[in-house]
Amino acid sequence: MRRIYLDYAATTPVHSDVVQAMLPYFSQHFGNPSSIHFLGQDAKEAVEQARQQLAHLIGAKSEEIVFTSSGTEADNLAIKGIALANRDRGNHIITSCIEHHAVLEPCHWLEKQGFSVTYLPVDGYGMVSPDDVKKALTGKTILVSIMHANNEIGTLEPLAEIARVTREAGVYLHTDAVQTVGHIPVNVEQMGVDLLSLSAHKFYGPKGIGALYVRKGTKIAPLVHGGGQEKNRRSGTENVPGIVGLGKAAKIAERELPDEATRLTALRDELIQGILDQISDIRLNGHPTMRLPNNVNISVAYIEGEAMLLNLDLAGICASTGSACSSASLQPSHVLTALGLAHTQAHGSLRFTLGKWTSKEDVDTVLNVFPTIVAKLRAVSPLLKESSRT
Amino acid sequence: MRRIYLDYAATTPVHSDVVQAMLPYFSQHFGNPSSIHFLGQDAKEAVEQARQQLAHLIGAKSEEIVFTSSGTEADNLAIKGIALANRDRGNHIITSCIEHHAVLEPCHWLEKQGFSVTYLPVDGYGMVSPDDVKKALTGKTILVSIMHANNEIGTLEPLAEIARVTREAGVYLHTDAVQTVGHIPVNVEQMGVDLLSLSAHKFYGPKGIGALYVRKGTKIAPLVHGGGQEKNRRSGTENVPGIVGLGKAAKIAERELPDEATRLTALRDELIQGILDQISDIRLNGHPTMRLPNNVNISVAYIEGEAMLLNLDLAGICASTGSACSSASLQPSHVLTALGLAHTQAHGSLRFTLGKWTSKEDVDTVLNVFPTIVAKLRAVSPLLKESSRT
Repeated sequence: MRRIYLDYAATTPVHSDVVQAMLPYFSQHFGNPSSIHFLGQDAKEAVEQARQQLAHLIGAKSEEIVFTSSGTEADNLAIKGIALANRDRGNHIITSCIEHHAVLEPCHWLEKQGFSVTYLPVDGYGMVSPDDVKKALTGKTILVSIMHANNEIGTLEPLAEIARVTREAGVYLHTDAVQTVGHIPVNVEQMGVDLLSLSAHKFYGPKGIGALYVRKGTKIAPLVHGGGQEKNRRSGTENVPGIVGLGKAAKIAERELPDEATRLTALRDELIQGILDQISDIRLNGHPTMRLPNNVNISVAYIEGEAMLLNLDLAGICASTGSACSSASLQPSHVLTALGLAHTQAHGSLRFTLGKWTSKEDVDTVLNVFPTIVAKLRAVSPLLKESSRT
Repeated sequence: MRRIYLDYAATTPVHSDVVQAMLPYFSQHFGNPSSIHFLGQDAKEAVEQARQQLAHLIGAKSEEIVFTSSGTEADNLAIKGIALANRDRGNHIITSCIEHHAVLEPCHWLEKQGFSVTYLPVDGYGMVSPDDVKKALTGKTILVSIMHANNEIGTLEPLAEIARVTREAGVYLHTDAVQTVGHIPVNVEQMGVDLLSLSAHKFYGPKGIGALYVRKGTKIAPLVHGGGQEKNRRSGTENVPGIVGLGKAAKIAERELPDEATRLTALRDELIQGILDQISDIRLNGHPTMRLPNNVNISVAYIEGEAMLLNLDLAGICASTGSACSSASLQPSHVLTALGLAHTQAHGSLRFTLGKWTSKEDVDTVLNVFPTIVAKLRAVSPLLKESSRT
């Protein structure tokens, strides 16, 4: 059976050039970057080269990059690190209700430590209003954290406009850019952010490595204490092969991103249009145009996302009901409910996310297989029968 | 020039079988373990198999293993996680003054959060006294953290005896076993510990992955919040290739450990004896017998550790002045000063740590080269001239 992977937002396969770049750092140039002998210095140089490669991709300076073990750790470092280091200036944080759990959970934790958090609503497309950010600011606000693109519905947030608000107020702005770095142009200067989280495995790098961009002069406390690596911002022996892989992935992304974003946008729109044309009682979630080039999120009335997913899996097609992190949960997606969807609509949702190895043929196959699955599930759906009765 | 690596305590090369085991998980079985489709389930199975392999090596149950990004993160999770989750029971922690910075720095951080920490002294060999632990206990003590073996001087601490004290007192016992797991037998039941930190790259696994053993029923708070991975004890997409590598390294260690420990102990003693025989005004740091099979730490009077290191490096021999994490620091080692060494003695210290690819020929080469280096440096040493004058 031909396998079609359409869950690139959950994770991506590592690019073969990235694996090749990493390999020498396992058993050959295996030194600890803190060692002063030649093997240590080899490793240190590799780490610094990767730091430059990543910094270049996002328009930052090398010294503004802190390597972490994941996007989640980067979000935790940004939010708790800013909160704990700037408590003397205030205890109020502003975020949105559609952030990833890696942002929401640190916020919940901080609430237990005496911080106050405002969770902004979004409009029907999942957009945060810069005006709402402005209205939520208080004299005690120290941080605003708004994601660059939502991982479930793909909506791009108006970061540059939000940055104008936070800069005027003298408040730090963090963005979770885990879904955008490597996929669309990301430039910390143009966006005006002070902190930005990213993760290698979302753009053809390895799992186990991420980074936080921290604008020079930003006051931040470390979360992991120890030997003082990463200029005292994140202790622990550097994951040298992972860091090298992240650097290489950044370099490849910089080269391939413009063409790839265009190619995927066309495939995405073909998939959306094909689904909307063939299936009734369906809605596209997220913004129609201000969305990630690779994201298709739909709600299919009368049936369950999980049932669609399992049938697609049997047909060799990998998709998702939303965030991979929450796919084991029975709760409806907090993102979809924030858009105003009813629980039944949220439960009938499905996400296809496209990537480097997605072809037109893959999209055609999905457009061939998926409507049949929907029809089959609807034929036995108690929800549809109920709806027909009324 | 033949290269001789004698800095295995800083980091080890990844075993080729470990790299081979990891490779399929980069680009082939690359799913996110949280995804419910077949690629996600593949990855999840691999993670759970590795968890079993690691648990087996240390005599634990699978569900007691929490994967982290490093030994440092495991130490941070153990100490802050226990402190923050058990604050209602007390605010006192006992540790030793020769712990790794990954333990000491979290303790310092907790002191700023209202916790009180007792830093126990050690004897001239670097041993903590179980009696001292007992005397330091108060009604508010919630955690004792004593390392299994010291990373600089190799001394093994009397964990089982300390465990008898902590169990009687109903206090959690954590051990930083980063230097012992994979090198000597480690069994959490026999040791009687409640928490144990380990790191893959110290025993031929990859950098970027570690683990914390957490005894069932132990109340611990997470440090990284988010999607709830690792049963809510450590969020973030699992580093699947790293975890698979750690599992494989554990499996190899279990098979090879007994013979390898015997082989290295013989080589270690040959190196120690050869150095003591050939060089005057020298002392062995750490316990003569209760020490890691691969650790040689010496103080050479009248000269600087860094100078010896650079000369060894030029001769193709990689060693260390102590902890790799602190090798850039100008401070004398906190471990050596705790043994009672003067600053000049501490500054004249050198650590050779042996490993899987260390041969008798390597030891012979060091015994041939090193005394010459010492003689050369002493010939121009202002300290020696000063000493001769008096």
